[in-house]
Amino acid sequence: MASTLYILNGPNLNLLGTREPEKYGRLSLAEIEALCRAAAKAHDFEIVFRQSNHEGELVDWIQEAKAKGAVGIILNPAGYTTTSVAILDALLAVQLPIIEIHLTNIHAREEFRHHSLVSRVATAVICGLGPGSYEQAIAGMAGLIARGKK
Amino acid sequence: MASTLYILNGPNLNLLGTREPEKYGRLSLAEIEALCRAAAKAHDFEIVFRQSNHEGELVDWIQEAKAKGAVGIILNPAGYTTTSVAILDALLAVQLPIIEIHLTNIHAREEFRHHSLVSRVATAVICGLGPGSYEQAIAGMAGLIARGKK
Amino acid sequence: MASTLYILNGPNLNLLGTREPEKYGRLSLAEIEALCRAAAKAHDFEIVFRQSNHEGELVDWIQEAKAKGAVGIILNPAGYTTTSVAILDALLAVQLPIIEIHLTNIHAREEFRHHSLVSRVATAVICGLGPGSYEQAIAGMAGLIARGKK
Amino acid sequence: MASTLYILNGPNLNLLGTREPEKYGRLSLAEIEALCRAAAKAHDFEIVFRQSNHEGELVDWIQEAKAKGAVGIILNPAGYTTTSVAILDALLAVQLPIIEIHLTNIHAREEFRHHSLVSRVATAVICGLGPGSYEQAIAGMAGLIARGKK
Amino acid sequence: MASTLYILNGPNLNLLGTREPEKYGRLSLAEIEALCRAAAKAHDFEIVFRQSNHEGELVDWIQEAKAKGAVGIILNPAGYTTTSVAILDALLAVQLPIIEIHLTNIHAREEFRHHSLVSRVATAVICGLGPGSYEQAIAGMAGLIARGKK
Amino acid sequence: MASTLYILNGPNLNLLGTREPEKYGRLSLAEIEALCRAAAKAHDFEIVFRQSNHEGELVDWIQEAKAKGAVGIILNPAGYTTTSVAILDALLAVQLPIIEIHLTNIHAREEFRHHSLVSRVATAVICGLGPGSYEQAIAGMAGLIARGKK
Amino acid sequence: MASTLYILNGPNLNLLGTREPEKYGRLSLAEIEALCRAAAKAHDFEIVFRQSNHEGELVDWIQEAKAKGAVGIILNPAGYTTTSVAILDALLAVQLPIIEIHLTNIHAREEFRHHSLVSRVATAVICGLGPGSYEQAIAGMAGLIARGKK
Amino acid sequence: MASTLYILNGPNLNLLGTREPEKYGRLSLAEIEALCRAAAKAHDFEIVFRQSNHEGELVDWIQEAKAKGAVGIILNPAGYTTTSVAILDALLAVQLPIIEIHLTNIHAREEFRHHSLVSRVATAVICGLGPGSYEQAIAGMAGLIARGKK
Amino acid sequence: MASTLYILNGPNLNLLGTREPEKYGRLSLAEIEALCRAAAKAHDFEIVFRQSNHEGELVDWIQEAKAKGAVGIILNPAGYTTTSVAILDALLAVQLPIIEIHLTNIHAREEFRHHSLVSRVATAVICGLGPGSYEQAIAGMAGLIARGKK
Amino acid sequence: MASTLYILNGPNLNLLGTREPEKYGRLSLAEIEALCRAAAKAHDFEIVFRQSNHEGELVDWIQEAKAKGAVGIILNPAGYTTTSVAILDALLAVQLPIIEIHLTNIHAREEFRHHSLVSRVATAVICGLGPGSYEQAIAGMAGLIARGKK
Amino acid sequence: MASTLYILNGPNLNLLGTREPEKYGRLSLAEIEALCRAAAKAHDFEIVFRQSNHEGELVDWIQEAKAKGAVGIILNPAGYTTTSVAILDALLAVQLPIIEIHLTNIHAREEFRHHSLVSRVATAVICGLGPGSYEQAIAGMAGLIARGKK
Amino acid sequence: MASTLYILNGPNLNLLGTREPEKYGRLSLAEIEALCRAAAKAHDFEIVFRQSNHEGELVDWIQEAKAKGAVGIILNPAGYTTTSVAILDALLAVQLPIIEIHLTNIHAREEFRHHSLVSRVATAVICGLGPGSYEQAIAGMAGLIARGKK
Repeated sequence: MASTLYILNGPNLNLLGTREPEKYGRLSLAEIEALCRAAAKAHDFEIVFRQSNHEGELVDWIQEAKAKGAVGIILNPAGYTTTSVAILDALLAVQLPIIEIHLTNIHAREEFRHHSLVSRVATAVICGLGPGSYEQAIAGMAGLIARGKK
Repeated sequence: MASTLYILNGPNLNLLGTREPEKYGRLSLAEIEALCRAAAKAHDFEIVFRQSNHEGELVDWIQEAKAKGAVGIILNPAGYTTTSVAILDALLAVQLPIIEIHLTNIHAREEFRHHSLVSRVATAVICGLGPGSYEQAIAGMAGLIARGKK
Repeated sequence: MASTLYILNGPNLNLLGTREPEKYGRLSLAEIEALCRAAAKAHDFEIVFRQSNHEGELVDWIQEAKAKGAVGIILNPAGYTTTSVAILDALLAVQLPIIEIHLTNIHAREEFRHHSLVSRVATAVICGLGPGSYEQAIAGMAGLIARGKK
Repeated sequence: MASTLYILNGPNLNLLGTREPEKYGRLSLAEIEALCRAAAKAHDFEIVFRQSNHEGELVDWIQEAKAKGAVGIILNPAGYTTTSVAILDALLAVQLPIIEIHLTNIHAREEFRHHSLVSRVATAVICGLGPGSYEQAIAGMAGLIARGKK
Repeated sequence: MASTLYILNGPNLNLLGTREPEKYGRLSLAEIEALCRAAAKAHDFEIVFRQSNHEGELVDWIQEAKAKGAVGIILNPAGYTTTSVAILDALLAVQLPIIEIHLTNIHAREEFRHHSLVSRVATAVICGLGPGSYEQAIAGMAGLIARGKK
Repeated sequence: MASTLYILNGPNLNLLGTREPEKYGRLSLAEIEALCRAAAKAHDFEIVFRQSNHEGELVDWIQEAKAKGAVGIILNPAGYTTTSVAILDALLAVQLPIIEIHLTNIHAREEFRHHSLVSRVATAVICGLGPGSYEQAIAGMAGLIARGKK
Repeated sequence: MASTLYILNGPNLNLLGTREPEKYGRLSLAEIEALCRAAAKAHDFEIVFRQSNHEGELVDWIQEAKAKGAVGIILNPAGYTTTSVAILDALLAVQLPIIEIHLTNIHAREEFRHHSLVSRVATAVICGLGPGSYEQAIAGMAGLIARGKK
Repeated sequence: MASTLYILNGPNLNLLGTREPEKYGRLSLAEIEALCRAAAKAHDFEIVFRQSNHEGELVDWIQEAKAKGAVGIILNPAGYTTTSVAILDALLAVQLPIIEIHLTNIHAREEFRHHSLVSRVATAVICGLGPGSYEQAIAGMAGLIARGKK
Repeated sequence: MASTLYILNGPNLNLLGTREPEKYGRLSLAEIEALCRAAAKAHDFEIVFRQSNHEGELVDWIQEAKAKGAVGIILNPAGYTTTSVAILDALLAVQLPIIEIHLTNIHAREEFRHHSLVSRVATAVICGLGPGSYEQAIAGMAGLIARGKK
Repeated sequence: MASTLYILNGPNLNLLGTREPEKYGRLSLAEIEALCRAAAKAHDFEIVFRQSNHEGELVDWIQEAKAKGAVGIILNPAGYTTTSVAILDALLAVQLPIIEIHLTNIHAREEFRHHSLVSRVATAVICGLGPGSYEQAIAGMAGLIARGKK
Repeated sequence: MASTLYILNGPNLNLLGTREPEKYGRLSLAEIEALCRAAAKAHDFEIVFRQSNHEGELVDWIQEAKAKGAVGIILNPAGYTTTSVAILDALLAVQLPIIEIHLTNIHAREEFRHHSLVSRVATAVICGLGPGSYEQAIAGMAGLIARGKK
Repeated sequence: MASTLYILNGPNLNLLGTREPEKYGRLSLAEIEALCRAAAKAHDFEIVFRQSNHEGELVDWIQEAKAKGAVGIILNPAGYTTTSVAILDALLAVQLPIIEIHLTNIHAREEFRHHSLVSRVATAVICGLGPGSYEQAIAGMAGLIARGKK
């Protein structure tokens, strides 16, 4: 039976495709979800794919991932990247492999986007590959799990 | 004909496998090169794979990559990550897709390792996947090139 | 037909009139809404006037403003002024004229209230006029739109 | 008739007992609630005991405490300790005795946990006593009220 | 008899219309003065409208405003915004309602323009409305005076 | 036989009752000692209660506490809170449960009082309860010892 | 023949007596000048006593003091205290004994008033004595000159 | 009957005359005491003149000054100027006029000597007049007391 | 017909030759003007050479340079180098080639002289060549204009 | 016999003409060398003109300049400007006139390029004149040597 | 006759051997004194070996060393390393060769232990050699004195 | 058979004896090597003594020390002290006892020399003893090895 992976998306990612496409690309979140389902299938993962504008809901879902037996979490924290200790604490609490992703290279953007709180507790970080950040995170998660690393 | 990719490794990476293996893993650099050659073949890349302890030599090789017509550079800048404006300038000069990689998640380590100068000019950054950082970077580079992004 | 303006109010503004009235004044939020409706009518705006204690809900409403065809947003971000990148990103995403307002002059208060994240992406900022901040924002928005400026 | 005390718990505290027990102890939140009910009875308090992962909901409940006539609030802000101006403003607005508590001594942990925004407006702060932080806060609140101090 | 309002303009504002018009707009200072006279008439104010490149002259005029019985000052401090304690002290000394204005949103510009010294002592601040900043300041001043607030 | 607790008081606490009573309360140090003796009796502790204006003497007493077999130390470091590495080192050396206390909430006072060095090594911290800080510290110490926590 | 002393006063000091008298006292600048003339006579000094709101004029006068053969300068830089490198350079250039004075203790006021540039090059600094700052500066200058110290 | 003034000297001032005389002058502390006694007599003060290398002893003496009915304290805190919150708290506690003095202009010396903690609570500060700092402080104290200022 | 160049000198430069000659050299400003006239003639420039201690006057002259059709400005901002946003704004407004000069190497002097505001908007900066800074600036300006660079 | 001047060029300057020509200009390093040879001849200098990407090689050459009797060094440190204490120390060691040059005005670029370590020990600095920086440095060096200044 | 060396030990060093032995080693201070006496004999020094928890007493002893004709001071300032300007001033005053020592490498410990005030005025610093720090300091002092260096 | 010790010297140390001898002393590096050979013989060490201006070469040699079975490394990192993470990483990788040395007391020099990166991973640090720093390091290394400490 396939293992389950949670792919969680933070605030404003529901606008992908229309939101500053020169920065974030022209794929909608639904299209990215489709890419993820394809990549997940290739690595024999089930995926739960969700988006929320609410910090608390993201915390709830991270907890749920653990409760539902997921083997890992891929998180695009978006606007909560640098500001949410609550998400950081949730990630610490669930003790799962975590890959933090961003569509853009946040280190090449405004200073206030550089210092991710999530990165302090993530297992790995991928940014700047556009939709490829999702695909490589799924492949990378497969590798992490194969090598037995949290 | 396959496109060429430069995979450049910074100081002390020649010690991989023996250097703090609990942190950097048990694979030697030669074994990582082998993984890279396999991954490159899968994406139809030729690769030039090198390591140097010398900042200036890394600058030379980045310039050489451009001169030799490489389509992209994967760089693990190691000890020069946070200190080398010379490498940053070389990367700016060559105008190629750049993926910066690290075996470990540098954001979960000592404060002085967090602020990568290279990240300011890289196209993408991958860290914390161990040898998987190399593999996903090769796959990610294929995606970047396919989508035509510098 | 009148254009629509969203006037959004952040956390604790539902307590206006009773909350530290020497600082925030004696008008309730309902009374301020009434002032706004009068001012809006004078400039031929429809208004949507709302308050929430939830950051995510404010993000939702900013997105909704765009989706519903509003011509501008007046936002009193209150407690989320200096902490919410999610709201900043939502404002960036909607590409509308934004006027950030505060009842008090936040620059004359505690240091931690000075550095508004919202101000980085707002078109204009008005603070310190008490309920007048709302009224002048509506008049100012009319001017901005008349001069065709985002 | 007993006075009412609100005891509010921030994000991830619902995981107590299973979340990093070497740090946060082995009692579940339900067990801590039981301890609180016992301690409250001893000081003749009614208590309202709640937990939420949502910043906005905590703001709502702080406002509710005031509206329902509570005599004080004991708040474990957890992940919102250092990031929430909205909670700070709510506490300012209700003008009640506030005791901020933490299970662990936050000053002996990571730097980013040291600078509590809540502490700026709390009447008192207790941290590091584990479940005892709740018990002493209830006893301390009784003392504060007896001495008539906000 | 109409009350008098001083509208004072700092360095380089005499170049308006020709100075970086994409930033500051195409109206000359004389045209802005005309807008102000119209707005002032609508609120039954007399206005004294002046510009100087000299910090000391602005200090003199702020003092003069008080001495001549003005009811408020609208100040566009321009290049002295972040550097002049002398102007800050003059504003403190005169104890009048002060509205600080800027044509552009200074918080969306270079970092060194963000920290206004004048804002620490102003009653209110309006920025980013272009010539509308002047008009709304006049209307806002009328409101402040009507509500009796310094 | 009762266990012994050291309760040590730093500089200027001998002036309690007369020193800024609106801040520090109207009880003298002798009256606080009496409260402590009552509370200690209730938890079956012997107490050694002392005050000194001398940093070195506080270091001596902390060492003495260990040498005399005390089970814990309650320390109000007062003016040495933020400046004494010598006291910090003494506390580290004795390896006893330590509760740091303050009459006032130091986090709601001047910035230079916020960063306690003692807190880095204390087991727990209680501040802002006035004389209750002493009482709850004694009760809290009983709890810590009961739960066997250093 | 009496030696000449320049006593120079910076911006807004012309308002003394009316400007925030609870802070700056009730004496006018003319009354302070009278006190200075009395004190100067007692130490056999001629004095030149002036005030300007213009930084450049203060620079001119400092240069003039040297050119006219003054034996020392007493300077109340007021609003230019922390911002004027031009005055600092003028003081360096004239190579005379300089006593910087302030009516109030600037170190007990807002943070932005603490870091005097003038103090870096003054011979001595006196603040907080009200009009006494002028009197003690004149007496202190007599002492400095008697001991032959620049 | 003459009022009493405490003149307290901090660490290493007992070495005056021999300690870096090019910086601190050639007068011994006994010679400075003699100057002070002369100046005190002229203003009809009794003086208590002491020196200690011990921070705690200086705190004791500040408290004693109050207890013995002194009308003011002149304090040269020397090496404790920038580091002693205990002395700052003692000065706050005694509620007397305080003049902080230094032989040298501390603002023209090393950066770490600039930020006096004592200055935050002193009534006045005099530095850089050499022994004249003591003499002008005594005269200045007479003036403060005459004007009835704490 | 020769093009006109404005050479503007900031505060205290009128003292050259007598002011700290070991730092600033022994030439008077008149002698430097003579050197400039010779150099200007060699490059076929007319020059307007002025000095002022007044920030506002320097702003006036920068505006005048533009109005009078000058082809470039050479500015020695002296004491206004690090403090004048008004001059920075004037330089931005005139959109001419600007060469900032200093007699000394400001980067080898006190820290507070390092961060020139003028440098942010200058075309080029020359410092440390003594009177040669003026001569090379004139020659450099000729080169800039020949290459058509603002 | 002509004196010898070393003109040393740091990393990536070998790419001039092709590297970001809109920033660094269209001349190759060989063309700049030719300009330098012409300028050197005009001032009767021999020149040694070199480029290296290696920090250590630049240190070697600076030492060689001294050993070979050069009369001065013109250094474009490029990517080592802000990071190399080794170059700073070499410059200190050789005790020669040093002119630091940059093609661009580094103060108008990214913040991390502003703080040159080399400038702390250079005799003079010229930046922003493009190839003219080299030419004016040669002329300026002639002037420095003529005036006998290190 | 042998020269005398003062070896002074700061707070908590009396606990050596029992205090965190994994950090500070298992030798008691008496055993270290014995090592020192042996090393001193080998270099023909008399030694005075003392420990105090009191900052003021350490200041007294440093002064005494000078008064008694000691040829040098070896100081382990322990908890006063980073906080005592009084000790720094005493060391400046005695003008003797000073070697600061630490058992551990303080630069490899917590950030707040890195910035020694004593190091600013010490002749030499040795840390991290355990008891060897004392032995090498004695040998090093012999060398310093032989080479005649303060 | 004697154990081998690597003694490595960083940039510009080849100039010793001629480079600022008042700071670094009059011994050449060859003379220091001779001192080291004598001291090494006394402790029965073989030594490898080298100098390089190249960061990468120092990294190579540190790795070689490990590969060749050296028992420890004495490193004078000179200009790479504060800037080289590559050397820091090499030292971490070899897991040998490391003594960092400096001829001068770097903490008594310019601020930018204070924060050694090497010190974070060195076993011990010795500075300020001139050539004695080398001698005491060799003796200290013998002690470290005798006590079996890395």
